[in-house]
Amino acid sequence: MSAAKVVSVTPADLAFPDWMHTVQSQVEAALARCLPPGEALPGRLHQAMRYAGLNGGKRVRPLLAFAAGELTAATPQRLEIVACAIELIHSYSLVHDDLPSMDNDVLRRGRPTCHVEFDEATALLVGDSLQSLAFELLAREDFGDPRRQLEMLRLLARASGSLGMAGGQAIDLEAVGRSLEQPELELMHALKTGALIRAAALLGALCGSALSASESTSLDRFAKRAGLLFQVVDDILDCTANTATLGKTAGKDAAAEKPTYVSLMGLERAREFAADLRSQALAALTVFGGRGQRLLELTDFITERKF
Amino acid sequence: MSAAKVVSVTPADLAFPDWMHTVQSQVEAALARCLPPGEALPGRLHQAMRYAGLNGGKRVRPLLAFAAGELTAATPQRLEIVACAIELIHSYSLVHDDLPSMDNDVLRRGRPTCHVEFDEATALLVGDSLQSLAFELLAREDFGDPRRQLEMLRLLARASGSLGMAGGQAIDLEAVGRSLEQPELELMHALKTGALIRAAALLGALCGSALSASESTSLDRFAKRAGLLFQVVDDILDCTANTATLGKTAGKDAAAEKPTYVSLMGLERAREFAADLRSQALAALTVFGGRGQRLLELTDFITERKF
Repeated sequence: MSAAKVVSVTPADLAFPDWMHTVQSQVEAALARCLPPGEALPGRLHQAMRYAGLNGGKRVRPLLAFAAGELTAATPQRLEIVACAIELIHSYSLVHDDLPSMDNDVLRRGRPTCHVEFDEATALLVGDSLQSLAFELLAREDFGDPRRQLEMLRLLARASGSLGMAGGQAIDLEAVGRSLEQPELELMHALKTGALIRAAALLGALCGSALSASESTSLDRFAKRAGLLFQVVDDILDCTANTATLGKTAGKDAAAEKPTYVSLMGLERAREFAADLRSQALAALTVFGGRGQRLLELTDFITERKF
Repeated sequence: MSAAKVVSVTPADLAFPDWMHTVQSQVEAALARCLPPGEALPGRLHQAMRYAGLNGGKRVRPLLAFAAGELTAATPQRLEIVACAIELIHSYSLVHDDLPSMDNDVLRRGRPTCHVEFDEATALLVGDSLQSLAFELLAREDFGDPRRQLEMLRLLARASGSLGMAGGQAIDLEAVGRSLEQPELELMHALKTGALIRAAALLGALCGSALSASESTSLDRFAKRAGLLFQVVDDILDCTANTATLGKTAGKDAAAEKPTYVSLMGLERAREFAADLRSQALAALTVFGGRGQRLLELTDFITERKF
């Protein structure tokens, strides 16, 4: 098939729910292809990696990457790789976060967590291996411009490490039982959840044509607000939804005396804060005009989700 | 300072022990620079990363990278980056291997292991963050040829993941209490220890001019034999040395019913096997003539080490 015949699976005329399901299915299939088969040695490790990686999650980060890709006319083939790499990092973090020495959680997306279904040592290696696979995947595919690809690898690595996601998790650990002020809470979430969400949007846009400096700034502002919005809504849901709806243990943050936006500001003010963040995120998108439509719809989805 | 004035810190006329100490000091200093400072937030995580990463280990993998770099006239600046990236991966694997759910070890290089000195959750995040940092570092520096740099990233990622080091660890887990045949034991070690040792040699050579296809094949053959040799000697030392000399718990493999070359073939045959591997490794180096001198000396060091 020649490049000219490749048809985008995310055409602008799909209604948002159809677009979302299309992207989710595409990413699920791509993850199934890039994870080693369960028969390949060591079999138990690979089966556990597939168990953790292929669980039909919401795939919010891949959706963000695909939506940001519309800003730069990125090809679905490249977006697929970026989406998988980000989701592998996200999946590894969930497996490690659920371990007994961290959150000690037994339920994830309605199924036993990886260390419950397999064992702790295997879950540790699953997380470690998913992280390696993310970087291998992003380094393996041909993105046309190798220098930009190195930039993408740096961005993902930084968003994952001690100055990104893992660093946020460490601040979270130190904060248990203490009362955090809002600036500290925002720093924690900017790293713990925000860094990878921001990376998803930036990496998606990097799959296509170059953005101008001011467009990059706007996208970054959007991505930071969207990351925080996602976390505030998560805190609200942790407090208001039940375990069956969430597919994970509800109310566990409060039970673990973890600082949340709801514990900090109360439910009503947390809801107002979410509405403010949504407005700020959407305002950052205006520079993109019609190209920002999917990001706009996705922001509304993130704000209004019930699980 | 112009490039022409850069003086190699590994001149050919240094005696091996001096060369080794020079490289070890250089790598230790480079690691101290590339690890985030202990004051940077989150402080406890960064202090623990430095504790785990800066422990004055033997730095066998960095030594291999530097010795292999002599085959291709690689610059010490690039070798330093590659050596740090590999050593960060190695350090992360030690921190995770020592965790209670894995080997549950309390002593590493004569000091309390990371989870004993800090705590389990922090040690988990230390390992995760050291892995991210390895890839960030290798993607960050300018190696001149970005396509070759992507190849180096792929090589390191593959050597680290489920088809490399972490996969070997998984086979090791499954083998506890079972009796492995030599082919299985070799596959396990080819992944667990061998993959990263092989990567160290290949990455070191990739820091300089290109090798011919037959030279690459010879280097790869050398690296595989050297990796296995390192493990066989490790098994012999685990059985013959004492805890104080090793700086880690001696005899723990036997105590944990882990399969080793000594348990498989007995001490004398394991020693003969090590001697055979040494000969095979050295034979693979003949194609390089004098350029292979450091690799030859390093092979002898690996064979004769007492700790």
